[in-house]
Amino acid sequence: MGITSYDGSEFYSHRGLGHVAQVFSQKELDALPGMMASGHVRYSTTGGSGLRNVQPLFADLASGGFAIAHNGNISNAMALKRDLVAKGSIFQSTSDTETIIHLVATSRYPTLLDRFIDALRMVEGAYSLICMTPEGMIACRDPLGIRPLVMGRLGDAIVFASETVALDVIGAEFTRAVEPGELVQVDHKGTISSHRPFGTPSPRPCIFEHVYFSRPDSVMDGRSVYGVRKQIGVELAKEAPAPADLVIPVPDSGVPAAIGYAQESGIPFELGIIRSHYVGRTFIQPGEQARHNDVKRKHNANRALVEGKKIILIDDSIVRGTTSLKIVEMMRDAGAAEVHMRIASPPTEHSCFYGVDTPERSKLLAANMDIEAMAAFIKADSLAFVSIDGLYRAVGEAKRNSKCPQFCDACFSGDYPTKLTDFTERQPPKLNAA
Amino acid sequence: MGITSYDGSEFYSHRGLGHVAQVFSQKELDALPGMMASGHVRYSTTGGSGLRNVQPLFADLASGGFAIAHNGNISNAMALKRDLVAKGSIFQSTSDTETIIHLVATSRYPTLLDRFIDALRMVEGAYSLICMTPEGMIACRDPLGIRPLVMGRLGDAIVFASETVALDVIGAEFTRAVEPGELVQVDHKGTISSHRPFGTPSPRPCIFEHVYFSRPDSVMDGRSVYGVRKQIGVELAKEAPAPADLVIPVPDSGVPAAIGYAQESGIPFELGIIRSHYVGRTFIQPGEQARHNDVKRKHNANRALVEGKKIILIDDSIVRGTTSLKIVEMMRDAGAAEVHMRIASPPTEHSCFYGVDTPERSKLLAANMDIEAMAAFIKADSLAFVSIDGLYRAVGEAKRNSKCPQFCDACFSGDYPTKLTDFTERQPPKLNAA
Amino acid sequence: MGITSYDGSEFYSHRGLGHVAQVFSQKELDALPGMMASGHVRYSTTGGSGLRNVQPLFADLASGGFAIAHNGNISNAMALKRDLVAKGSIFQSTSDTETIIHLVATSRYPTLLDRFIDALRMVEGAYSLICMTPEGMIACRDPLGIRPLVMGRLGDAIVFASETVALDVIGAEFTRAVEPGELVQVDHKGTISSHRPFGTPSPRPCIFEHVYFSRPDSVMDGRSVYGVRKQIGVELAKEAPAPADLVIPVPDSGVPAAIGYAQESGIPFELGIIRSHYVGRTFIQPGEQARHNDVKRKHNANRALVEGKKIILIDDSIVRGTTSLKIVEMMRDAGAAEVHMRIASPPTEHSCFYGVDTPERSKLLAANMDIEAMAAFIKADSLAFVSIDGLYRAVGEAKRNSKCPQFCDACFSGDYPTKLTDFTERQPPKLNAA
Amino acid sequence: MGITSYDGSEFYSHRGLGHVAQVFSQKELDALPGMMASGHVRYSTTGGSGLRNVQPLFADLASGGFAIAHNGNISNAMALKRDLVAKGSIFQSTSDTETIIHLVATSRYPTLLDRFIDALRMVEGAYSLICMTPEGMIACRDPLGIRPLVMGRLGDAIVFASETVALDVIGAEFTRAVEPGELVQVDHKGTISSHRPFGTPSPRPCIFEHVYFSRPDSVMDGRSVYGVRKQIGVELAKEAPAPADLVIPVPDSGVPAAIGYAQESGIPFELGIIRSHYVGRTFIQPGEQARHNDVKRKHNANRALVEGKKIILIDDSIVRGTTSLKIVEMMRDAGAAEVHMRIASPPTEHSCFYGVDTPERSKLLAANMDIEAMAAFIKADSLAFVSIDGLYRAVGEAKRNSKCPQFCDACFSGDYPTKLTDFTERQPPKLNAA
Repeated sequence: MGITSYDGSEFYSHRGLGHVAQVFSQKELDALPGMMASGHVRYSTTGGSGLRNVQPLFADLASGGFAIAHNGNISNAMALKRDLVAKGSIFQSTSDTETIIHLVATSRYPTLLDRFIDALRMVEGAYSLICMTPEGMIACRDPLGIRPLVMGRLGDAIVFASETVALDVIGAEFTRAVEPGELVQVDHKGTISSHRPFGTPSPRPCIFEHVYFSRPDSVMDGRSVYGVRKQIGVELAKEAPAPADLVIPVPDSGVPAAIGYAQESGIPFELGIIRSHYVGRTFIQPGEQARHNDVKRKHNANRALVEGKKIILIDDSIVRGTTSLKIVEMMRDAGAAEVHMRIASPPTEHSCFYGVDTPERSKLLAANMDIEAMAAFIKADSLAFVSIDGLYRAVGEAKRNSKCPQFCDACFSGDYPTKLTDFTERQPPKLNAA
Repeated sequence: MGITSYDGSEFYSHRGLGHVAQVFSQKELDALPGMMASGHVRYSTTGGSGLRNVQPLFADLASGGFAIAHNGNISNAMALKRDLVAKGSIFQSTSDTETIIHLVATSRYPTLLDRFIDALRMVEGAYSLICMTPEGMIACRDPLGIRPLVMGRLGDAIVFASETVALDVIGAEFTRAVEPGELVQVDHKGTISSHRPFGTPSPRPCIFEHVYFSRPDSVMDGRSVYGVRKQIGVELAKEAPAPADLVIPVPDSGVPAAIGYAQESGIPFELGIIRSHYVGRTFIQPGEQARHNDVKRKHNANRALVEGKKIILIDDSIVRGTTSLKIVEMMRDAGAAEVHMRIASPPTEHSCFYGVDTPERSKLLAANMDIEAMAAFIKADSLAFVSIDGLYRAVGEAKRNSKCPQFCDACFSGDYPTKLTDFTERQPPKLNAA
Repeated sequence: MGITSYDGSEFYSHRGLGHVAQVFSQKELDALPGMMASGHVRYSTTGGSGLRNVQPLFADLASGGFAIAHNGNISNAMALKRDLVAKGSIFQSTSDTETIIHLVATSRYPTLLDRFIDALRMVEGAYSLICMTPEGMIACRDPLGIRPLVMGRLGDAIVFASETVALDVIGAEFTRAVEPGELVQVDHKGTISSHRPFGTPSPRPCIFEHVYFSRPDSVMDGRSVYGVRKQIGVELAKEAPAPADLVIPVPDSGVPAAIGYAQESGIPFELGIIRSHYVGRTFIQPGEQARHNDVKRKHNANRALVEGKKIILIDDSIVRGTTSLKIVEMMRDAGAAEVHMRIASPPTEHSCFYGVDTPERSKLLAANMDIEAMAAFIKADSLAFVSIDGLYRAVGEAKRNSKCPQFCDACFSGDYPTKLTDFTERQPPKLNAA
Repeated sequence: MGITSYDGSEFYSHRGLGHVAQVFSQKELDALPGMMASGHVRYSTTGGSGLRNVQPLFADLASGGFAIAHNGNISNAMALKRDLVAKGSIFQSTSDTETIIHLVATSRYPTLLDRFIDALRMVEGAYSLICMTPEGMIACRDPLGIRPLVMGRLGDAIVFASETVALDVIGAEFTRAVEPGELVQVDHKGTISSHRPFGTPSPRPCIFEHVYFSRPDSVMDGRSVYGVRKQIGVELAKEAPAPADLVIPVPDSGVPAAIGYAQESGIPFELGIIRSHYVGRTFIQPGEQARHNDVKRKHNANRALVEGKKIILIDDSIVRGTTSLKIVEMMRDAGAAEVHMRIASPPTEHSCFYGVDTPERSKLLAANMDIEAMAAFIKADSLAFVSIDGLYRAVGEAKRNSKCPQFCDACFSGDYPTKLTDFTERQPPKLNAA
């Protein structure tokens, strides 16, 4: 987590471990009237996924200081880097963001804006970018708008963030989303100009932001994330009912869908799993082994409630399956009579190359097994996922438009909306349940 | 947070910031077959309260190493310290726990057990103690059993903890509660002996552990904490109904009571406040000012849900009132039509001198105002607290026995069950609502 | 290295790695007009010896704060500690200085001065002590005056230090030495009172301070340390001449004696060994092995000078012999034709129990071998030590008074002037040269 | 201080505070049989001067890893950097060394050796460079050989260092100096090839290395540094005798010249100033003020020796004059009857732009005053400098060849042997003594 600010003559960087609330702190902004600050906004997530942590980078270019924060992933970064190094660029990191800086630095266009657009034209993948220059701020969302980017106002200051909730937290007012493919420039007088360097392709925003990644109190493209998740629960209750005594969310990400499921099914919503608030520690432990051991410590069964009951567990997704297995076992150890697992997203069969930190495909449970085999693996009495059309209905569409999908749903469908120069997809064979 | 272990010849201490799950880690216990480890178990709390952080202390006595962990508060520690210093004891800390060590060190009895009992006879207040000596472990709960203490078994090892949940987390089996006034000795062969050095006074365990302090997945004296809290919500729905569209918990401590309130009233339970999981940071910021600023950052309104709705907010308690005020304002800013606050405990009118870190009485809102004035202060449309008898019903009693109350409820009633040598209660005048 | 100051109501401690120049810094003293500061003065030494690093200790006694700095060693500290612990004192360190504090704390005398004297009467060994109390400062030198202690004045402030050079460095004026067995009390008005709690035994100051430990620019008991060391060189040139081309000091401690030897013998003084100024590092490397490897790195031969020459090497002492061996080998590798080693002290045959950090007796080369065997061990063409009477002549005495020696010379003579309750001398057999 | 090593596939960097002895540690070299390690060798100096601390830098080029250590100063680094940034290079430091790396990275030549030579042809100033590449090591000395560079052998390994003493310290054998303008390439088989990319201009090695910068146990171009310094003392005794009782060096750099002066004049050499070995600390204090205060702490007068005596002080140079003033005052405070200052170099009238960290010209005492005024400023009874021809005699030349000087003596003569693109010399007016 980092923040870089500019006081009219110098750039200042502050980096550290921290969270969204600290990115645009009141104090920082109070200290910068008429000036700008750029931070990196990320929602700290639970479970196996999470965006890669990219710090705001800074460089001294011929045009002056240049700071850039990036949310997403450049899928031809390695190829671009190879070319740049051959011509004499010296890289300091393995971050794909640094590639953009070198493209800007070596562009032959005269103005910084032209150099920046020249650089982005060479880039493929997903990105929401916020740059600071001595002239002002530039924010840009990739042509398909895969990653979100919003714009707000705090007094006289213009603020950019990944989610509306980051604006709420600092008391800024939401103005509008930056459009897919839009580049917004803000100068020191507060003059805003909008550019469309990539034309107007059909947008494909990431549907997984709704399922899992965004905070429930965010509003994306006019839809409440909380409302969408509750509605996924409703769809799931219709598509995959189960005879049970209690609806229990896997905390915290499964809670809204569980409320929706409970309301639709009439089965009481109860806290059968108590989460310790030690999330942060999970991520500082290196290696997969440590992460698995932590599942037990992070969640504890509410034994007095669960004992002897038939339960429906609601979770947002199944990635490797190891977390689900631990949770089902925990419920059985606590005396649950039956455990029915319901998942508020379709099976995650494909890796994300746009910034969500899913493991390689061979480690995805749904890439290796059908649903019956998965149920056996996690030791559930039954297992069901919401359908892809159920998911599209929950976000307000009639159904998925298979010719031109309204969202990027590559992690479910394998339909990647961009070229993937640096990556090769490996398709492991599916195993059926024995 | 600390842990001290003994390997048969040396004591080892490990201290650091951390949480319950780390206290008796599998690895530590695996590394100590047949030996002992003692840790300090605390539930990290939100809001204005919290137990004082006391690290396990260690001293070299004539009888060998002596480690002690203490949960609670000694209410004559300052008076005892004055006497000890006059006779030549040199203190290293301001911790009341150190007083016990010096009393043990200077006792004239021949055996360590007798010295320890001699020391405890001079002590007044609330304490659950775990000591380690070269001969084994001693656990002791104060005569009234104000603070909880449980005993478990993990393989051959005997384990003590404040709550059953700490046993769950490490996979230990719950054996039984240590009784009020009981002293349990465990030697290296695992032989357990029970002592009753204080006779058998009527117990007065802390009722606030049920309301707020213990984790919902704990079982105290045979009662599920989650179940008790849901039941408080049920009592509250009966005693103080409100015409509203939604029941919204103040996360996370208000959730079980809100589920109970919703089930009893038939009004839907919804997440109207989203909590960022940055709790840890709240506590590292010094001073009250910092804490107040953090309320906003820790909670964010789910605007899309709340807008235009009449809501019932459920919280566990009101201490200073500042948090409640911020939350009510946040709901109104998000467009709530009406805000009815319901509190899952009686008004907190008195300070705790037994280890719960309530502020001094003059800062307690309920010590300064009646309920009407409090409602005006926090800007709620209505405000109600569960009655003291409602609370006693929720924990399974018919009603409070006013002659000999079944619990310590001093924070609500002012009825302190012990002498308070070091403290003087100041009774500020009550203000009525204008 | 530490410093503790008192501002009239509170004690402040500052500890860290550092050196004499920082003990009484101008800034500290400027900041404390009329008040007091106490520090621990040590000369950072090279080679195998060095005083044990004792930090100023602090305790809260019934009489108020009490800070104490100690130079020397208490030779019955372990026995005293055993008794104190049995009565209930709890120790925080393994420092012998802490024993004095507990003796003061548990003394039954009414005033702090009487308690302090009561404590010192139980103590055996060597000590120069500086204490700070809310009433003022107390400085005390052990009855035999084994360790030095001087008194100075800086403006209105009274300053105590181990050596006059510490006064020079801060610009303080030397007043006088604290006498052996004298206790000097200074109150906040600057009133000085002198006490003689131990009567007036014959003093036995440490002669090794002149040979090695004190800085050459110090004046001890009216004698210039530099002058004494040069004179030892003169005595050595008379007692142990050698036919050679150059007189070469082992830097830095052998330099003054080498100048004296060169002037007396007429053989030119030259720098044949260059010392890198990396002394500090030597001490941070753990273990003896690391120390030995460092000898090579710390000294380098001036090959162009030494090649083909007959040389006399002058060093202050031989402890284990390993350093001398490395240096002789280095000179031979650089092409020296003959190497004659001359030592500016008698053979170090016995351990010091008064604060000089000599190794245990079995590791002292002179405790295991006669001079001929030592010469063979260090591979020198010849080896000679100054005689004990030569040493006494150099410090201005006619000769050593064997019935009542004027100095403590136990490291050379084995004649310890106090009881040594905690220690047992082991006398390993001497080995003769084969 | 840093060291970078290469194990055949990866580069490893270790950086930290440290000294010459650690650069090529035995352990490091033992760990790298047949491979290479490159370090930065600097003699830690006292006084106001010192080479700028440049760490070994590393970059990933198209040809693979590239590590470079630099001793000296590039005098057109700023101009080159401006051009490189305009073309898209991104700098990470303000080090002139980084300029060389970017020149190599952006060169269009096909092989790394050609790219490196192409880069050096654009560079002006003084440099000794050691580079490591996956193919081997390249060492290069600037065309005039201003900074020294030597080559040695340790077992099978080839070692480069600034001074022969660095070879001694690690036990490596001196092979030969790298010639001015020579580029030496060593591959992994140990094959050595020598290149002459700049032709054969007349060399101009830095004469100040002999006076001050090199360690006395080094041999430069066949001359013992210790021998040269003693000979400067001899020349000084002939050119500028003084009637006095004692010859006293300003430690440590004045010692060899003082021995020479004493031997030539017959006046006894004595240690009248004692140096505390706290050199390291001097450099960590920020700002000039702190440095001046430290002069007193670093040196202390040997009062017992100096009192009432006429003394000759020998120092290596006068830079700002403040150190000399403090030392003369210290001698007078200690009772010296007369103080005659003799300096073992000509007046330092000009700044060095080749890597010696002299202050800007306006702060050089000799750039502002004639010798009489300087004597008055430092309060000496007399002051003399060795003549420029005396200095050349001491290094073995008959006299300075004014048409084509044998050395770079720009700091004394203002005769700079290269262009100085980045610098402008400012010539402040001279002040005469009033």
